[in-house]
Amino acid sequence: MERALSGCSYPAVCERWGLFEITLHGPAEGNPFTEQSVSAVFTGAGQSVSVCGFYDGGGLYRIRFMPSAEGTHTFRITASFPVPEPEGSFYVAPASRSNHGPVRVKNTFHFAYEDGTAYYPVGTTCYVWALQSDDLIRQTLESLKVSGFNKIRFCIFPKHYLYNLHDPRSFPYEGTPMDCTLLTEDNFNDFNGAASGNNWDFTRFNPDYFRHIENCILRLQELGVEADLIIMHPYDRWGFSRMTQKQNDLYWHYLTARLSAFRNIWWSLANEYDLMPSMKTEDWERLAGILCNEDPYGHLRSIHNCVPFYDYTRPWITHCCIQRQDLYRTAEYTDEWRGQFGKPVVPDEIAYEGDIPCGWGNITGEEMVRRFWECAVRGGYPGHGETLPESGNILWWSHGGPLRGESWKRVRFLRRILSETPGTGLAPVRSEWDDVSAVPEEKDLAEKTGYRIYYYSFMRPSSREFRFEDNRARRVEIIDTWNMTVEDAGVHAGHFRIPLPSRPYMAIRMCFG
Amino acid sequence: MERALSGCSYPAVCERWGLFEITLHGPAEGNPFTEQSVSAVFTGAGQSVSVCGFYDGGGLYRIRFMPSAEGTHTFRITASFPVPEPEGSFYVAPASRSNHGPVRVKNTFHFAYEDGTAYYPVGTTCYVWALQSDDLIRQTLESLKVSGFNKIRFCIFPKHYLYNLHDPRSFPYEGTPMDCTLLTEDNFNDFNGAASGNNWDFTRFNPDYFRHIENCILRLQELGVEADLIIMHPYDRWGFSRMTQKQNDLYWHYLTARLSAFRNIWWSLANEYDLMPSMKTEDWERLAGILCNEDPYGHLRSIHNCVPFYDYTRPWITHCCIQRQDLYRTAEYTDEWRGQFGKPVVPDEIAYEGDIPCGWGNITGEEMVRRFWECAVRGGYPGHGETLPESGNILWWSHGGPLRGESWKRVRFLRRILSETPGTGLAPVRSEWDDVSAVPEEKDLAEKTGYRIYYYSFMRPSSREFRFEDNRARRVEIIDTWNMTVEDAGVHAGHFRIPLPSRPYMAIRMCFG
Repeated sequence: MERALSGCSYPAVCERWGLFEITLHGPAEGNPFTEQSVSAVFTGAGQSVSVCGFYDGGGLYRIRFMPSAEGTHTFRITASFPVPEPEGSFYVAPASRSNHGPVRVKNTFHFAYEDGTAYYPVGTTCYVWALQSDDLIRQTLESLKVSGFNKIRFCIFPKHYLYNLHDPRSFPYEGTPMDCTLLTEDNFNDFNGAASGNNWDFTRFNPDYFRHIENCILRLQELGVEADLIIMHPYDRWGFSRMTQKQNDLYWHYLTARLSAFRNIWWSLANEYDLMPSMKTEDWERLAGILCNEDPYGHLRSIHNCVPFYDYTRPWITHCCIQRQDLYRTAEYTDEWRGQFGKPVVPDEIAYEGDIPCGWGNITGEEMVRRFWECAVRGGYPGHGETLPESGNILWWSHGGPLRGESWKRVRFLRRILSETPGTGLAPVRSEWDDVSAVPEEKDLAEKTGYRIYYYSFMRPSSREFRFEDNRARRVEIIDTWNMTVEDAGVHAGHFRIPLPSRPYMAIRMCFG
Repeated sequence: MERALSGCSYPAVCERWGLFEITLHGPAEGNPFTEQSVSAVFTGAGQSVSVCGFYDGGGLYRIRFMPSAEGTHTFRITASFPVPEPEGSFYVAPASRSNHGPVRVKNTFHFAYEDGTAYYPVGTTCYVWALQSDDLIRQTLESLKVSGFNKIRFCIFPKHYLYNLHDPRSFPYEGTPMDCTLLTEDNFNDFNGAASGNNWDFTRFNPDYFRHIENCILRLQELGVEADLIIMHPYDRWGFSRMTQKQNDLYWHYLTARLSAFRNIWWSLANEYDLMPSMKTEDWERLAGILCNEDPYGHLRSIHNCVPFYDYTRPWITHCCIQRQDLYRTAEYTDEWRGQFGKPVVPDEIAYEGDIPCGWGNITGEEMVRRFWECAVRGGYPGHGETLPESGNILWWSHGGPLRGESWKRVRFLRRILSETPGTGLAPVRSEWDDVSAVPEEKDLAEKTGYRIYYYSFMRPSSREFRFEDNRARRVEIIDTWNMTVEDAGVHAGHFRIPLPSRPYMAIRMCFG
């Protein structure tokens, strides 16, 4: 049921945390992106929310809203052009079964959906999967469906980098790109930033481009996958990383107006922010301010480093999106970072399973899974990626497609183990010097359940000894994190020894039983 | 040909760096260890060396000397008892073919025999191999013979620890040990340090005990293996780690008098010095002084930590004997330690290949070999050990016996690769962020040969790219450090790419060709 005012249409009903959209007809002449404006105030359940609309091409303007409460809502539109009937109302129905709302920080270091449902982020990275062919996009979605990943990091802008030299399916601005036919894997860096031959109007967006991105976000939403959106990045030959600050502001305003009402988005201000010489800290802070002001739903916000960390104590940063700084120790710093920043730790780049020449993309599946467990048992949320080139140089890390590695299934298994944690999230506890172990983050649940998980990493003990003073019976399970098995090891109390199979990558889980 | 004075015998000829020994008859009554003294001054090749002798039981005293120059030498004995003909002479012949003298520090961070022959220490640890049965000692020597190890760390005193609860073949002092029949792997720590039931006379050594150790040192010498002697250690139920400082001094004087003249010894003041509560820094410094004063040959000296490092900048320390402080990064700190201490870095405990419950003894062969290469290509000298319990709980790490692991053969292969370095020793050089690489320590040789070695650790690049500005032809070899192969990869110049097999543990070596 769609209501239509004269030149203004919107649905009569929307579900909680659904995307409510008003479409208006308005001026198409001149430059509507810069010369027109449209916004609305939504009121319902005792709250008022002001949101900006955007021009979507062809004389159409849209205003989007994500209601976070049920019941009747009203709106009032304000625009730079006449809107015949600027007010209306609609009803917000209960969320459908698979809709738990946006993801929020919970228990300082963890996450949950707004309706309280547990959410353990198990993410992957496919930087420009959304800019590939329809066929490849379909394959990526199929891969995600079976993968167990519930978060995917990807870029809004196209990517120019090794294995990413072809033009994207379309461009975010009106204009024409530089010729890329002479680019090779050997000389691509010489073009980086030069951007000669590009001809863009940075004041005119290509609405098709963004509609396509939105469609991808919705496909992810259907799969229960969060879209961790990288707003800017340095891998660029088109000049999108070197726009003026005024042009950046226009882009960020446009993006927040278009995307904020999607419940399954996270904002990643940048990938490797420190590789963008035209951007200063004050610029990132100003752009973060746009997100804080214009995304009324407060979607999660972070920024990803190459080498130096951004100051994760900044109040607008909701979680620490971290690329490892050390070739050897990576996920093993998770507990230190928790202590340092007091926020969820999401080391979303801890190298990728693959065999390309670059050290960030050639670890084994075993090492990838080991890093996942090291991080998870320290109460953090690592990120996956695959750099195993198929014929045609299709790599999951950038293009999506089929998953070809060994780690993704084990990561899915880890997600299952995490989802069996009492309460929300694991808290690392010091145990022996040669294991990592964790209990539930909520202390009362930790004490009540006796839940504890121990991970032995690359070590291969033939047994481990436990000494508990309480002498309560504990059900013990042996987890083979690589072979993905959980084996009952009986009920024990006090001082006992659990035999293990002298293989790496084992864990032990126990709780009162 | 043995000359005999009345009550004094010695050989007429000794080879350079051989062990020249004078035997004297003297008083057996009272306590000759504390009540008598004997020493000699040796003169030859323009140098005089004063050495202490020792009481060897049965009314026999011995004075030992290691000549470092050829030609006629004379000596003059001084003793607390009458020596009828206290002077004599002997001839020092050239060293035999396999005798290169003691090992010295060379090129700041490396080692060589005194005759200049290259010595790349590739060491293993068998803490109390010398105190096992004759049969096990024979097995250990056979293992060493084929192993490629040219250094072995072991204790003078017996060891009380996990897997080490039985009594040694004999004891270093007169007296009787506590009863060990009630000790178990579970309660052994409760006995640690209590030492009740022991009955020792710490002023009376058991010469048989030390003669046996010396015999073991000679067997090692025949195999070209250096004896890295651990003088004290904390794993003790007999009280040898808790003697008074006066008792310690007596032991150290006795030991230096007996052992200094063996060319293939190194002094390790302690294993895990920081686990010995009765010892203070001033005690170690005093004991180091005994070594410096009474070992006239200046054998290599170091001290091994559990957690905090000893101050390796102390002038008496010739090389840094290091136990890793981090479960994850170990050998990877080698270059930092070189920079910090300006001495050879010998991380002789970087965990052992095995599967026992303890994290220091359950890494895989792959991880052991990886740590060796990480250290070696940073210009350091790591140590091996095996904790793979056989039936009867025989572990190479403590008892010796057969080598059962996967790493030792690869360590032997690494020794071969190191021995092919131009000059003496590797110097780490920064290359890419994701490899470690090294050139010869001697800059002129590095420039002349173009030798360079790159190691890729757990990463598995399918190729690596090189860009040299000099455009000189380089012969490239691909080294599989696990499968122990060296493959010719042709001659290349300037900018080139070397295909690799997408497996971990690969290295590339090149030189002008």
